[in-house]
Amino acid sequence: MVSRSNKVNPDLIRERQNCTFDTLELTHLLDGGIERTNDRKNRENFFLNDPELQSKVPSEYLSHKEKYEEAVKKAAIIFRKVQQLQNEGRGGMDNFREILGGQLGSAILKDGNPLTLHYVMFIPTLMGQGNVEQQAEWIQRAWSCDIIGTYAQTELGHGTFIRGLETTATYDPTTEEFVLNSPTITAYKWWPGGLGHSANYAVVVAQLYTLGKCYGIHPFIVQLRDEETHHPLPGIKIGEIGCKLGMNSTNNGYLGLENVRIPRKHMLMKNSQVLTDGTYVKSPSSKLTYGTMIFVRVVLVQDAATYLKKACTIATRYSAVRHQSQIKPDDPEPQIMDFLTQQYKLFPFISASFAFQYAATWLWNTYNNVTGELETGQLDNLPELHSTACALKAVSTADAARGIEILRLACGGHGYMTSSNLPSTYGLVTAMCTYEGENTVLLLQTARFLIKIWQNKQDIQNLPTVKYLETALTLNNPFEKSVKWIISALQQTAASKIDLANRHINDRVQAGQAYETAWNNTSIELVAVADIHGRTIIVETFYNTIQSLKGTVSPQLGTVLEQLLELYAVDTALKCSGDLLRFTALEGRHMVVLQAWMESLLAAIRPNAVGIVDSFDFRDEVLSSALGAYDGNVYERLLEEAQKSPLNEEPVNKSFDLYLKPFIKSNL
Amino acid sequence: MVSRSNKVNPDLIRERQNCTFDTLELTHLLDGGIERTNDRKNRENFFLNDPELQSKVPSEYLSHKEKYEEAVKKAAIIFRKVQQLQNEGRGGMDNFREILGGQLGSAILKDGNPLTLHYVMFIPTLMGQGNVEQQAEWIQRAWSCDIIGTYAQTELGHGTFIRGLETTATYDPTTEEFVLNSPTITAYKWWPGGLGHSANYAVVVAQLYTLGKCYGIHPFIVQLRDEETHHPLPGIKIGEIGCKLGMNSTNNGYLGLENVRIPRKHMLMKNSQVLTDGTYVKSPSSKLTYGTMIFVRVVLVQDAATYLKKACTIATRYSAVRHQSQIKPDDPEPQIMDFLTQQYKLFPFISASFAFQYAATWLWNTYNNVTGELETGQLDNLPELHSTACALKAVSTADAARGIEILRLACGGHGYMTSSNLPSTYGLVTAMCTYEGENTVLLLQTARFLIKIWQNKQDIQNLPTVKYLETALTLNNPFEKSVKWIISALQQTAASKIDLANRHINDRVQAGQAYETAWNNTSIELVAVADIHGRTIIVETFYNTIQSLKGTVSPQLGTVLEQLLELYAVDTALKCSGDLLRFTALEGRHMVVLQAWMESLLAAIRPNAVGIVDSFDFRDEVLSSALGAYDGNVYERLLEEAQKSPLNEEPVNKSFDLYLKPFIKSNL
Repeated sequence: MVSRSNKVNPDLIRERQNCTFDTLELTHLLDGGIERTNDRKNRENFFLNDPELQSKVPSEYLSHKEKYEEAVKKAAIIFRKVQQLQNEGRGGMDNFREILGGQLGSAILKDGNPLTLHYVMFIPTLMGQGNVEQQAEWIQRAWSCDIIGTYAQTELGHGTFIRGLETTATYDPTTEEFVLNSPTITAYKWWPGGLGHSANYAVVVAQLYTLGKCYGIHPFIVQLRDEETHHPLPGIKIGEIGCKLGMNSTNNGYLGLENVRIPRKHMLMKNSQVLTDGTYVKSPSSKLTYGTMIFVRVVLVQDAATYLKKACTIATRYSAVRHQSQIKPDDPEPQIMDFLTQQYKLFPFISASFAFQYAATWLWNTYNNVTGELETGQLDNLPELHSTACALKAVSTADAARGIEILRLACGGHGYMTSSNLPSTYGLVTAMCTYEGENTVLLLQTARFLIKIWQNKQDIQNLPTVKYLETALTLNNPFEKSVKWIISALQQTAASKIDLANRHINDRVQAGQAYETAWNNTSIELVAVADIHGRTIIVETFYNTIQSLKGTVSPQLGTVLEQLLELYAVDTALKCSGDLLRFTALEGRHMVVLQAWMESLLAAIRPNAVGIVDSFDFRDEVLSSALGAYDGNVYERLLEEAQKSPLNEEPVNKSFDLYLKPFIKSNL
Repeated sequence: MVSRSNKVNPDLIRERQNCTFDTLELTHLLDGGIERTNDRKNRENFFLNDPELQSKVPSEYLSHKEKYEEAVKKAAIIFRKVQQLQNEGRGGMDNFREILGGQLGSAILKDGNPLTLHYVMFIPTLMGQGNVEQQAEWIQRAWSCDIIGTYAQTELGHGTFIRGLETTATYDPTTEEFVLNSPTITAYKWWPGGLGHSANYAVVVAQLYTLGKCYGIHPFIVQLRDEETHHPLPGIKIGEIGCKLGMNSTNNGYLGLENVRIPRKHMLMKNSQVLTDGTYVKSPSSKLTYGTMIFVRVVLVQDAATYLKKACTIATRYSAVRHQSQIKPDDPEPQIMDFLTQQYKLFPFISASFAFQYAATWLWNTYNNVTGELETGQLDNLPELHSTACALKAVSTADAARGIEILRLACGGHGYMTSSNLPSTYGLVTAMCTYEGENTVLLLQTARFLIKIWQNKQDIQNLPTVKYLETALTLNNPFEKSVKWIISALQQTAASKIDLANRHINDRVQAGQAYETAWNNTSIELVAVADIHGRTIIVETFYNTIQSLKGTVSPQLGTVLEQLLELYAVDTALKCSGDLLRFTALEGRHMVVLQAWMESLLAAIRPNAVGIVDSFDFRDEVLSSALGAYDGNVYERLLEEAQKSPLNEEPVNKSFDLYLKPFIKSNL
């Protein structure tokens, strides 16, 4: 109907001409060097240029069932290509990371991959919890995709509290088998990706009973479906859980078990064992599986940053192309990015995406250090790492989700279109607030660590994320327009709030409440405590990163990074102003200074906004957005996307003759 | 598979037994009297018990095209039933309101009705903007649904700024016709509901050209499709705009016009006319169409309240049924509503739904008074009404959308299920933040009124929503734990922020900026000004309403309403604490008092939480939520809903043989 030109929108050309720094320099910095940029681009070419992975009709127009079928088709192609890369020695974890959970994977299967859990949970669990013989037996089969597995832990009735899982695995010494059962409806497994119709095996987490005693939850390998026919095995009640806000191609499933017998050796026995006679042999340490859980949270902080960058790219380019209203009468309609309120919706989240990326990098390094120590038997830094990962996961996913919605709303009605790709981006990110540890639950775990530290500051000097607590309470640095002041103010605030919450717990205990009751009654404050502690770490890490980059980047880029740091810091301070006014030297009259500082940063970033998001270097296929494409041909693309609707294939839909015409004629 | 019992969940039975007030009394109060409750129930029975309106497969499993076809089918049935009620004299605006935009309509067509705009915009525009002859010609045809219309204003390139619309209607005196064109891609109409494939007529808003001159935008009746065949007429390029975050059955369409000729008399000429010779005759007043715009915003405040109530009902009942974790070791898993953090997610939004409902009722009354005055030529109170409607629409829709997301997240993973009905509730409400005036744009309109008033306080005593500005700046009431104090503090804060923003505009003008540039550069503050003004009105209206109910409700209910008022007030104060600390007598040490007050209110409301949401009296079909049903059989319903997925009809999906098995076997 309308043919799209290949010309770049003139507004974007002008924005790019006016950019004051080298966007390629920033791209390489964010990728971690030119080689990694090249690797990424090669990987993108390898997958995204494959005609087998293109679709004529966007998946949102398909029925739920068709979406699943297309997803299986593409998933099989994707994993064949991953295997090809491995076989050619062009493999590496980046491929898996990008294809399984990263942006590349979501560019091909926008609404989830039904086979992801095979690689992300099934194989790692076999590796982490199987003993040597089990690894020999299962990992090769799984790795070569001879079997397809998933990981079934969450039940209808239990997610957060895994000790409460109800599925049972009862050892029968007469046959040397475990008998698995779902004793109630709430014991049905619910949520595992690929469980519905894709996987034929699962690691099932169940309460282990042997010789009449329950030993708590343990992992078992359970065959779900016949390897040849794919039919569910006897006693396996299985299906998918239905439509969701997002991730409708992940084939999340349910599983009921009715006297399902598995060989004794299907219990994963690296940590604990049941001997043939039924004797339970305990694990030497229960902290060994701690690492994976933290690992996934580290990854989520990075994902939050990346998805936020994606939404920033879409909304910023659109705001450069869209013209609307007037600032002065008789002036032409300005780019909407010239409205200060629009800048305020965009730029703080651009700065937040840098903040989260740097927090993720720092957390990743910390994770590697601490897990390195674990192998030498050193466990001292594990609680702090756990606490930090909880807080950063909670803050970054919550802020990224909120940010993506604000950015979507900043695109007006067009942001509500699926073809903007903002709705499904939100759908993926808001899910992160719940899975791998619900955010409120995680913040309370951080708070537990902080209160413990507060009550016993003995070794605090060796704990980098909390050592500020030693002195922060007594700090009262006079207000100063600097990031350093903001960091000290956030630290003082966090310390003051921890102190106050701790006193409130103690007051309640004094008044006769059990400690746990007092804890619950103080938990609103405790969540806030962990939240501000997390933000303090993020601002400080951003600051330290920018300091460490000084001299290694061009002065032009250095200036831009400094502006983004300042914007993130001052925006955080303004959002926490109630706390800062209460607990620090900040006074009402200083708020005008902070506001003016923030506004001056918006103005400073304005000319480089498009350049900054260009540096994120998302391929159009990855952005997958009519509003965000590099060429800025927003309106042509919106119309072009609309043409893909199957409803638009016929001038008259059959519902006219079936329903509408009879209705109209009945009224005459 | 699992058959659901009809028993009510024992937790809910206990909650209902412990409720301290008569839920029926509150239901009648909220409905506006027992008669209106009965009317509502009769209406619900009439529509929801109709077997023709049931579906076997929930619409979320259908393809986009099938969703549309089912929507047309149901829409025709619904409107036939509406006509039946009218014919039987059982009509009334409540039927239209509830079926077209209300909860009853969304219970039948969860994701929108393709014929709504016929009643909501097409007919009202004919009535409001057609002259007597035009009304005679068109309204009967439209009213009897002989023709189906829509309202085409927004274009790809213009939404907010309607003066910028590009569609042209050029008068040709030789044939006495208008010639309509879309001169650019951005001139394409985009968004009108039902435009895609449903309507055969539209009111098209276009720039009127006659005798070589442009007279700005005017409405024209344009036939889109042949009345018999439904084929698009020559020059009509039409289709649907594609998938969206929500409202996927509304058939939002696009429309390009290429030399489409319509008779002169198809211009709606109540206000302005073009004579046969092309002479343009101006409208006596351009403010006459102002009313409809305000009316829709008034309705949206009510809708925000209702959708928020719906989400509160779902999340509260689920929180009473769901057990998880432990507060004390060895204690049984508590209802998650016993976690203070959960109460903090639920109860403030319950209180907000009352606040918004009372604000909507008050605004509705004000609207009726002011439009009554309009008919006598009195326009003095129109700007204040406009300002108030803008602020209340923006605050209530933004808070309701945010609240629904918080409530959804409070239901954990299960809240992410479509069968919770929380995702689509959010999809409908977040759209309200954009349509009928984008929220930031509306808040800036309120700010414009407030700044004008601030600069000239002459007649302020006669303007009830702003008269507080006369004295509020100098108020400095010492802190007191009372709603009255919070209202005065919010007023003082609003006045202080208006004063400050006004000074900042003036400073910028003094420094040489044009007033409009200064306005834009102060706009972040101006948005905040309007926001706090809106909140001030909402708290005060809630307070006044509860005062006026005293003596008319039972003491038990009175206590509950007072608690809800206090919770809304103190929650607002805590969320605005940065401002209150800055501009009022509130000091840091008082924050502890506010926090304790808020926590004591959560505790007070806890025993009545289920009773309060029961009083909202949503039928299960209206809630349409596995998590929120009256009987609380959450897990049975989740499983039951999953069984409706067409993917679960077969044990093995065809994708196994087509894609998965070849993939697995290729790896051996």
